[in-house]
Amino acid sequence: MSTLTISKRGTQMPASPIRKLVPYAEAAKKNGVHVYHLNIGQPDIETPKPMMDAVRNADIKVLEYSHSAGNESYRKKLVGYYQKLDIHVTANEIIVTTGGSEAIQFGFMACLDAGDEVIIPEPFYANYNGFAVAAGVTVVPITSTIENGFALPSIEAFEQKITAKTKAIVICNPNNPTGYLYSKEELLLLQALVKKYNLYLFSDEAYREFCYTGNHFSALQLTDIEEHVIVMDTVSKRYSACGARLGAFVTKNKEVYNAATKFAQARLSPPSFAQIAAEAAVDLDEHYFEGPKAEYLARRNALVARLNAMAGVFCPNPGGAFYAIAKLPIDNSDDFCQWLLEKFSYQDQTVMLAPATGFYGTAGLGKQEVRLAYVLNISDLEKAMDCLEEALKVYPGRVY
Amino acid sequence: MSTLTISKRGTQMPASPIRKLVPYAEAAKKNGVHVYHLNIGQPDIETPKPMMDAVRNADIKVLEYSHSAGNESYRKKLVGYYQKLDIHVTANEIIVTTGGSEAIQFGFMACLDAGDEVIIPEPFYANYNGFAVAAGVTVVPITSTIENGFALPSIEAFEQKITAKTKAIVICNPNNPTGYLYSKEELLLLQALVKKYNLYLFSDEAYREFCYTGNHFSALQLTDIEEHVIVMDTVSKRYSACGARLGAFVTKNKEVYNAATKFAQARLSPPSFAQIAAEAAVDLDEHYFEGPKAEYLARRNALVARLNAMAGVFCPNPGGAFYAIAKLPIDNSDDFCQWLLEKFSYQDQTVMLAPATGFYGTAGLGKQEVRLAYVLNISDLEKAMDCLEEALKVYPGRVY
Repeated sequence: MSTLTISKRGTQMPASPIRKLVPYAEAAKKNGVHVYHLNIGQPDIETPKPMMDAVRNADIKVLEYSHSAGNESYRKKLVGYYQKLDIHVTANEIIVTTGGSEAIQFGFMACLDAGDEVIIPEPFYANYNGFAVAAGVTVVPITSTIENGFALPSIEAFEQKITAKTKAIVICNPNNPTGYLYSKEELLLLQALVKKYNLYLFSDEAYREFCYTGNHFSALQLTDIEEHVIVMDTVSKRYSACGARLGAFVTKNKEVYNAATKFAQARLSPPSFAQIAAEAAVDLDEHYFEGPKAEYLARRNALVARLNAMAGVFCPNPGGAFYAIAKLPIDNSDDFCQWLLEKFSYQDQTVMLAPATGFYGTAGLGKQEVRLAYVLNISDLEKAMDCLEEALKVYPGRVY
Repeated sequence: MSTLTISKRGTQMPASPIRKLVPYAEAAKKNGVHVYHLNIGQPDIETPKPMMDAVRNADIKVLEYSHSAGNESYRKKLVGYYQKLDIHVTANEIIVTTGGSEAIQFGFMACLDAGDEVIIPEPFYANYNGFAVAAGVTVVPITSTIENGFALPSIEAFEQKITAKTKAIVICNPNNPTGYLYSKEELLLLQALVKKYNLYLFSDEAYREFCYTGNHFSALQLTDIEEHVIVMDTVSKRYSACGARLGAFVTKNKEVYNAATKFAQARLSPPSFAQIAAEAAVDLDEHYFEGPKAEYLARRNALVARLNAMAGVFCPNPGGAFYAIAKLPIDNSDDFCQWLLEKFSYQDQTVMLAPATGFYGTAGLGKQEVRLAYVLNISDLEKAMDCLEEALKVYPGRVY
């Protein structure tokens, strides 16, 4: 007779590394302290009005299931969207997903079995861990370092991690949490690697539109390894539409596509309202991204300048996305981020940051690092930096 | 070195048993034949206007992530919805999910490990198979029979299936695909069983509002086994809003709730537009369901009468949902359903049905049975029945 316990994976499943700080933020607010939220990737940029208007004006009598792969009209639009980026795919190589999250899940489920290993440069998006636990897959981290701006680790370092169980490499480009933008040369190194070892290359390109130090080179632009590549995509950050929950799973590998389709059929369809909004987004003025991109760039410049001007702080200049990781003169980033909320305020204000420990797979790493999401306007960012600067002067766990 | 193959679970994942017929339906339509779709549970009832208006009128600047468990305002409304049904839960016992599908996934993931067994009365909703494969869980079917209207199999029959690996029983009440409405007495038998063997009881109550032969008794109304019960819920059928993709995972078991919360956090949040629509739905006039329910009841009566009037056909009278399973005088339901689309037409019309084989876990069962979803108006239903009646007269595989 079994006992009534939750599953092992339910136990192993990591709690969100950021959300454990939420009660402290709530307490601070109750005490009248204003909290600048640099801890999550929820952009403040307005969702484009044409997206909202499309939903408003939709003439829907019955809100029906869509096709499991998403509305064909939307997938065809997406083909055009990718084409403008010199990425050439067909509507039958795209499955519209419920957020980028589901695209990651489909990739793991369709390509990997329990016990398989995926190599991921760390620090990495913490929820990869969760999806790996759900799929019974082992994440093998390979450390990238703040000293060289979190560039791709050497191919030799990758090769040392490859075992008989290795089945895929996951990259996020540009990267959450580091903001690093992988170069075409780095992608070509990965191309040779996945071909040599016959691995899948999962490329999470959620932040594709926001590149500041060069052009984005998509894994779908790698020739000769089309069968190996799966791109996970989303409209969440692209159009400041995180609540839509709409993403895409893109691959030219027919067998993988067909397997993912079966997982897509089991959950019936992606959300209908979001598809209407996203279809309108593809038709946005071609200059639409210039505004948000310029705004993020200005914020990045302001944030990084402020950070590097603080004594003992180092922040490499991120090439994309809207995150930066900074090394701080502190003993422990978890303690520090909690202390900022629980014990500290400056002019009745404080800042909420994400301890970088939650983004490393290797225990003990990230203790001097925090992730900052520049999702607030420059004026607020400056005030948040004022708080951080003052905090570092008085934090009891400061190290020199 | 691994080879580039899809996962075992990607191979094992069942394809939708209905969708394989879709190409034949499309070909029929191209040939000018009108196809009555009784094959899927996509209701034709209009989505309530207040739901659509709420989305239309929402003043959203940034379409943000919601809380991972869903907006608190919506969860509080849901508490009131359940209360009116004499189901007493709190907002912190509800996780808003992306469709009922995700609620099932959360239940499997939080409670079951790979290798665990779940017992499900068959015929059952085919996608339970898919979610089980994704979770590495084994479905142990227990056969219910058309002769007694697909009533709950005997407790002795359940006990014969229970092994050391059994961790849960899944019911769908009222049932898809049979339309059977479990009685309070049957629920009480299950209560004693799950208590005796310390099992979870997963109750999928997607069709709760549509009961014709008695009142619905929810698994959440079972006292004394609160820790064992997880209810999977959805607005899809309740409000004819399948495309919203919004459901709920409800349990009083804190440990299970907390584990499911971690899976919910990994995927960030349920869709925002849908939550706005669903929140408005809870405020619908208290008589709202009377219209759809009366319509489904009239359709059920018309459908079942027509079926039982056909020579050699038997259809038990379903107590709820909007499905019926009929036993037909045919050799093979898969062949028959394909033949209806590929080879048959009556006055340039035909009917698409779901072969019941796809709803059985035991190979070989359901070969004389089809599922009919009464999701068309009575006039169309009558014409669909005309087609079926004529088809049975000329089907080459008819058995006597």
